[in-house]
Amino acid sequence: MAVMIRNEVFSCYVFYGVLLVIKMYILAIITGQVRLRKKAFANPEDALRHGGLQYHRQDPYVERCRRAHINDMENILPFLFLGAIYSMIGPSLAVARFHFLVFLMSRTLHSIAYLFALQAPTRSLAYIVAQIPCFSMAVQILMAVAAYA
Amino acid sequence: MAVMIRNEVFSCYVFYGVLLVIKMYILAIITGQVRLRKKAFANPEDALRHGGLQYHRQDPYVERCRRAHINDMENILPFLFLGAIYSMIGPSLAVARFHFLVFLMSRTLHSIAYLFALQAPTRSLAYIVAQIPCFSMAVQILMAVAAYA
Amino acid sequence: MAVMIRNEVFSCYVFYGVLLVIKMYILAIITGQVRLRKKAFANPEDALRHGGLQYHRQDPYVERCRRAHINDMENILPFLFLGAIYSMIGPSLAVARFHFLVFLMSRTLHSIAYLFALQAPTRSLAYIVAQIPCFSMAVQILMAVAAYA
Repeated sequence: MAVMIRNEVFSCYVFYGVLLVIKMYILAIITGQVRLRKKAFANPEDALRHGGLQYHRQDPYVERCRRAHINDMENILPFLFLGAIYSMIGPSLAVARFHFLVFLMSRTLHSIAYLFALQAPTRSLAYIVAQIPCFSMAVQILMAVAAYA
Repeated sequence: MAVMIRNEVFSCYVFYGVLLVIKMYILAIITGQVRLRKKAFANPEDALRHGGLQYHRQDPYVERCRRAHINDMENILPFLFLGAIYSMIGPSLAVARFHFLVFLMSRTLHSIAYLFALQAPTRSLAYIVAQIPCFSMAVQILMAVAAYA
Repeated sequence: MAVMIRNEVFSCYVFYGVLLVIKMYILAIITGQVRLRKKAFANPEDALRHGGLQYHRQDPYVERCRRAHINDMENILPFLFLGAIYSMIGPSLAVARFHFLVFLMSRTLHSIAYLFALQAPTRSLAYIVAQIPCFSMAVQILMAVAAYA
């Protein structure tokens, strides 16, 4: 077993990182289920299998799910990079866990606000709060490695 | 040279990970070539260079290539995270390679099914089979680090 | 503190990786500001908050920002993977820094060319130049780990 996984901050990061990836996967599954329920398929071959080419069409709620998913990619994937590096620069476990927890909770609220079309600016606020630990980690990492620019 | 790259499971993960990234790059190159051949450009400045603003337009096959590429991002990028961590929790080389190989082969079939519009549900099955090693890795990782939640 | 972060090539990679992530974040912020200025919202709940449902609409410049951002995801996220692994296979610091610097500068030019709609093929050339260090890293990594296929 590698050295890193025995580091408790890195293990904490891994725990939250995997939960975030599962959250993304759940959004993909929801999108697929909504496509089936609304009969709105992006590809003619899928429409043909589910009733005919008239179902090769867009649906506003499917597009909403897509936007939620793409926003997750834009934010969770960079977090996976920042969190991994941040875990290696020696933060305290409590502070690191707080960063990861704020991100997980804000991004979960972001997905809920998107899927249920909660009143603005709920979703935007969740996005902004989730970015705070990311900017914090980015700044701390840059200070730790700036000598190697 | 770092310790990790001398770990044979991690090296195996790296091999498959790089092939998957190259597969994504190939999809991007195909999309660009299809844009040129179909004369369908997302940006007016590109259309102007290739014959005029009438080619600033959408094309169904270009959009298909785009969807294939975005689906790759949604699935291959989280795999790169899960596979790296999974390699650090001490799986046997044979079991780990089987996870990576199933994912690479399923995602390659997924791209082929998308680009050639193979009859449904070929593409969906390829997507689902590729998710199985991902869920397997996610569960094993969570069990390994749950104590650090 | 983990062993890796004391590796100077890895630290150099981290420095450029974080700058690239910040560059992506800036594109997201620009997109949001353009949505507000152009009053073009992807979600009805956002439009309602900013003047009415008539602002639930697409805008060509917002779509341009979106394409710039998605292109960043397609290229910067795989770089974060390739750069991390490449740092572990023992390149010289000078050669590695050159790979990272070419990528950062080309991707920055790519974003500028996209946002200002610079004459073609500026943006495409920036994309191609940025891919050269990525292909170089991919090939060197495959040669280093091919024995573990």
